[in-house]
Amino acid sequence: MSALHELLVDLPGPDEASAAAVHERAAEILRPSGALAWLDELAAWIAGWHRTDRPRVAHPVGLIFAGDHGVAAAEAVSAYPTNVTAAMFEAYRQGRSTISAFARHAGATVDAVDVGIGRPTADIRFEAALTSERFDEIVDIAVAAVDRLDGDLLVVGEMGIGNTTPSAAIAAALAGGETAAWVGRGTGIDDAGLARKRAAVQQAVRRIVGVTDPIEVLREVGGSELTAIAAAVVAARRRSLPVVLDGYVVTASVLPLVMVEPAAVEHCIVGHCSAEPGHRRLLERLGKRPLLDLDMRLGEGSGAMAAVPLVAMACAGITEVPTFAEWFGER
Amino acid sequence: MSALHELLVDLPGPDEASAAAVHERAAEILRPSGALAWLDELAAWIAGWHRTDRPRVAHPVGLIFAGDHGVAAAEAVSAYPTNVTAAMFEAYRQGRSTISAFARHAGATVDAVDVGIGRPTADIRFEAALTSERFDEIVDIAVAAVDRLDGDLLVVGEMGIGNTTPSAAIAAALAGGETAAWVGRGTGIDDAGLARKRAAVQQAVRRIVGVTDPIEVLREVGGSELTAIAAAVVAARRRSLPVVLDGYVVTASVLPLVMVEPAAVEHCIVGHCSAEPGHRRLLERLGKRPLLDLDMRLGEGSGAMAAVPLVAMACAGITEVPTFAEWFGER
Repeated sequence: MSALHELLVDLPGPDEASAAAVHERAAEILRPSGALAWLDELAAWIAGWHRTDRPRVAHPVGLIFAGDHGVAAAEAVSAYPTNVTAAMFEAYRQGRSTISAFARHAGATVDAVDVGIGRPTADIRFEAALTSERFDEIVDIAVAAVDRLDGDLLVVGEMGIGNTTPSAAIAAALAGGETAAWVGRGTGIDDAGLARKRAAVQQAVRRIVGVTDPIEVLREVGGSELTAIAAAVVAARRRSLPVVLDGYVVTASVLPLVMVEPAAVEHCIVGHCSAEPGHRRLLERLGKRPLLDLDMRLGEGSGAMAAVPLVAMACAGITEVPTFAEWFGER
Repeated sequence: MSALHELLVDLPGPDEASAAAVHERAAEILRPSGALAWLDELAAWIAGWHRTDRPRVAHPVGLIFAGDHGVAAAEAVSAYPTNVTAAMFEAYRQGRSTISAFARHAGATVDAVDVGIGRPTADIRFEAALTSERFDEIVDIAVAAVDRLDGDLLVVGEMGIGNTTPSAAIAAALAGGETAAWVGRGTGIDDAGLARKRAAVQQAVRRIVGVTDPIEVLREVGGSELTAIAAAVVAARRRSLPVVLDGYVVTASVLPLVMVEPAAVEHCIVGHCSAEPGHRRLLERLGKRPLLDLDMRLGEGSGAMAAVPLVAMACAGITEVPTFAEWFGER
């Protein structure tokens, strides 16, 4: 059993009483009952995981995992060279990236974790992306990163030139259907590149026919940051820390978790639906509705961070607004 | 000519050079070109109206117009009694309402303007909601409220028990189609109430057959806060202040403007699509895509306020993130 399998055993659930208390209060608040619809659901969801009937999002944190990909180094499956991963990592660290700018407007902090920059995974067309040892090592790094956090809502993001290729491979291997339908243009590759990318994904998926353990699929055709994301999401669950998922790469990274343990991402919402065409299909597979649908396709957690103020507002709609009885009693 | 007609003459357009500068910068920023899609468009839109190539949303302001409706007093077209308008108005003033809570998380301030609480419009089934004198008076109040503002993005909201009834009447009279299709449950009226509401809207619309001036339609079957919203939106335009529209009532209020001057709401975006079924149809009529689609149906500007952080982030994505050249030049 891998370190990730072990993490998935005996996952804690939400505190249903706290969630129910929020639903009750929502029905009595100084507005027509049900008028906030989904936002009231979000507040109850936060309450359940925070185990309090006074949900709030005061310290959202973003965690970006970054790594390099052997398939991207060997085959031009991305519009950018692989050394862009390292350059972007530095921008995250210095607060100069798009998600950093978004975070400042969401009252959030962002940290980035190197799980394999300049240390590319093996080329998934020909061999497993990660050895079992390296896979477990990355899981441990990600768990430690989450355990260090002091926050009340976790945004997970990723950076890794070429990483929509392993994402498509995971989706194709685990969700099935036409492989080509899971492959999009990522950061914006041309037609020839798209054809190479499709061929690479098909080759990787064919190579692992017969692998039935979804976590093994992640190790075989995934990547460093994808593994880290899966581990971070489970680590957050173990701390009862709710998570906002980002786009295609992040969603593909958690798909193996759901196939091992269907309730594994109940503590996660989806921040946005990406323009990468496979993302909407994956969300349907997971039964998750995205909060935002803005055609974004940046990654780095930016779509999830854009949705954070909505979650904070949803909580404020419960805790910062009186009930009819409170309001009329006060006057 | 009414005071609103006069306001609509010679509306200023955006500064295309500022918008173009943002588009240019967007293509060079440290992320894949086009990855923020619509958010880059939003930043360029703000730039155009702010007349600067450094768009920012630092001081969003919410303005809620409130008034009472004769048709609601005479016929039970709402799930709530009309005195709730006054009670909610007090909650806005004291910062205790849902939009106030949302505003705190959007870095915004909110003010509420009484344009007819306890002074209901006439029953639109039988006579014009407002006299020409009163209509102009409300226009002046709304313009003065906007002129007093010190903000860089305006959220317009409304409160008025029964006001989805005049909204449906405006939509039916100006956009046509089956009248009943414009009538929804508002704050949550039952089947019998919905039937009464449909009949009231039909009666009002039939009464004004032959009225061709869209502003006259607003005066005839609209209401105080609907008139104020229309005037505030045009007043904002005259100050080059971009606006976030809210739900069904706000959108119905600006429809007459567009029918007089097709470019009248180019400085407006739509914050969200309401659960009130007529809203989506109105947005299609206006050719506006809502930023959020969360099934909200609260009014008071809450859906628009929920979208404000996205606009602030869109600007930050342009001004707070370096270009590739800047980033690599710095290092």
